[in-house]
Amino acid sequence: MSPHPVGQIAATLRTSRSVLIVCHVGPDGDCIGSALALALALDALDVPCIVGSADGVPETLRFLPASARIVTVPPADPPDASVAVECSTPERAGTFAAALVSARTVVNLDHHLMNSQYGTIVYWDTTAAAVGEQVEEIIRALGVPVTPAIAECLLAAVVTDTGVFRFPNTSPKVLRLAAALVEAGASTHRIVEQVYEARTPGSVRLLGQALATVRLTPDGRAAWTVVTPPMLADSGALPEDTTGIAGALRQISGVRVALMFEQTGDGIRVSIRSRDGARSNVIAEALGGGGHAGAAGFTQQGTLDDVVALTLKEVHKELTRPPS
Amino acid sequence: MSPHPVGQIAATLRTSRSVLIVCHVGPDGDCIGSALALALALDALDVPCIVGSADGVPETLRFLPASARIVTVPPADPPDASVAVECSTPERAGTFAAALVSARTVVNLDHHLMNSQYGTIVYWDTTAAAVGEQVEEIIRALGVPVTPAIAECLLAAVVTDTGVFRFPNTSPKVLRLAAALVEAGASTHRIVEQVYEARTPGSVRLLGQALATVRLTPDGRAAWTVVTPPMLADSGALPEDTTGIAGALRQISGVRVALMFEQTGDGIRVSIRSRDGARSNVIAEALGGGGHAGAAGFTQQGTLDDVVALTLKEVHKELTRPPS
Repeated sequence: MSPHPVGQIAATLRTSRSVLIVCHVGPDGDCIGSALALALALDALDVPCIVGSADGVPETLRFLPASARIVTVPPADPPDASVAVECSTPERAGTFAAALVSARTVVNLDHHLMNSQYGTIVYWDTTAAAVGEQVEEIIRALGVPVTPAIAECLLAAVVTDTGVFRFPNTSPKVLRLAAALVEAGASTHRIVEQVYEARTPGSVRLLGQALATVRLTPDGRAAWTVVTPPMLADSGALPEDTTGIAGALRQISGVRVALMFEQTGDGIRVSIRSRDGARSNVIAEALGGGGHAGAAGFTQQGTLDDVVALTLKEVHKELTRPPS
Repeated sequence: MSPHPVGQIAATLRTSRSVLIVCHVGPDGDCIGSALALALALDALDVPCIVGSADGVPETLRFLPASARIVTVPPADPPDASVAVECSTPERAGTFAAALVSARTVVNLDHHLMNSQYGTIVYWDTTAAAVGEQVEEIIRALGVPVTPAIAECLLAAVVTDTGVFRFPNTSPKVLRLAAALVEAGASTHRIVEQVYEARTPGSVRLLGQALATVRLTPDGRAAWTVVTPPMLADSGALPEDTTGIAGALRQISGVRVALMFEQTGDGIRVSIRSRDGARSNVIAEALGGGGHAGAAGFTQQGTLDDVVALTLKEVHKELTRPPS
């Protein structure tokens, strides 16, 4: 990491003739909220700015008024500067990867555990609860006041990446940031209602089917469920409605690792959620994926039974590793 | 309200020879956590202190180590001072009401909307998100450092009364208090895990079955589901595991009234949850039950189809009433 990346980033962005802010594929609330907050701050400085997301904006985040500005097609011309938001490698930007690295200055912002440290300025802080914390520092360095709209985007980032202040990453720092954002006009209530309590009937039915068929390992320390294409079709749910299913299974007493296996056209997609020291990312990395200690994932080819067996073997390894 | 109730309360408690702290009947996390935090602070000052709760401690709050000190039988002798925690009237203390008012000095602490303002010192603050906020001020006035144990009790108070920072009462002040408590050694993660995420596999399966079979009225403003004895038996759930099912249905976008119909030996038990101005209690009262605006219930004899039809008729009335 450079000595003062926040100051460097602010200086670069402020003087850029065009900025491209890029989300990772399958963007979450932290990524979208942070990208939009930074874009709104650059608007205030009259720095031309595009926000790109190869996969667009999830339905649950479209309540953020600024989300309408997000484009899904990369710009034709190389931007003056680009900012990668939580892209461990440029490839995580999907169809925006080439545009991202075509910029004169590439800013690499991330708080995840793995990052290849590409780019001109790397601001990689694994102690941040959300990349939104890092973006708030950049906005402060830019000298832009936190408007209600910026506060809403940053609070959406912080609320979603802390699981509404319930994950172990809920630090005093992130709670104080949330306090300042509420003071600036945002509301946790409104964000939670939009992100978590505006579900479609289909997504509720799909969650129901997945919970109703939960299975546990004999020791009760891992729980898993399967989502099949007929379940999606019968419930009327969308593919993105699988979000939250593994997390719901993690609420079972004694469960340290919760898994959702989803049959997709690309193979079996596995979502892992863990707690009590079990590391999701270690399980995912063993099978070609990645993520955080509490949440990770990967995709495997093979039959459902094979992928379940393979995954449960890695889960068992992680749950029985000697204490370090 | 007295001019400086916090200072007065601290001065009184510090010099008391015996203190009785009293919870309301059916105590919640805010009440128990706040009462215990105050008791731990008085311990530090060597002020003899008893914490009483007529209804004991709910299972989900027993993880608080200090909860073991809570007694369910009032002391025989009048205490020097007593502190009522969220008791709108002395009667809300249940079997502790007489002991509460027998004290030389009665401190009445509350943040609820209704309070009869009994007692020697009234500290009633309806702007507080939790009575835990008020207790933290008293502890500060007592000059007692916030130990990890005190922080855990206060954070349990704050987390539960803000619905984990998602209710509209989630103010900058309560978020900053939470930050300080995490800094002092408490963890929102641990509290949420104990209070909300220690479900049985059976309760998760039952919730799944109930969500998978959700139905909506044609206008999408009411959602309902049915819990049958075979569902309870198949899932391995207990009757009390139906708690939360209607609330989960209320998360569907556009739904203002959510209902769970449960076939029991006593008839069809109906749980109602509502939002956006729809009044659960009005629906329940029309059918012989009662409750709050957001949550109510009743039990009816008859076939399931009849009770559903009857109830949806009342729901329709409530949803189409002219604005008042």
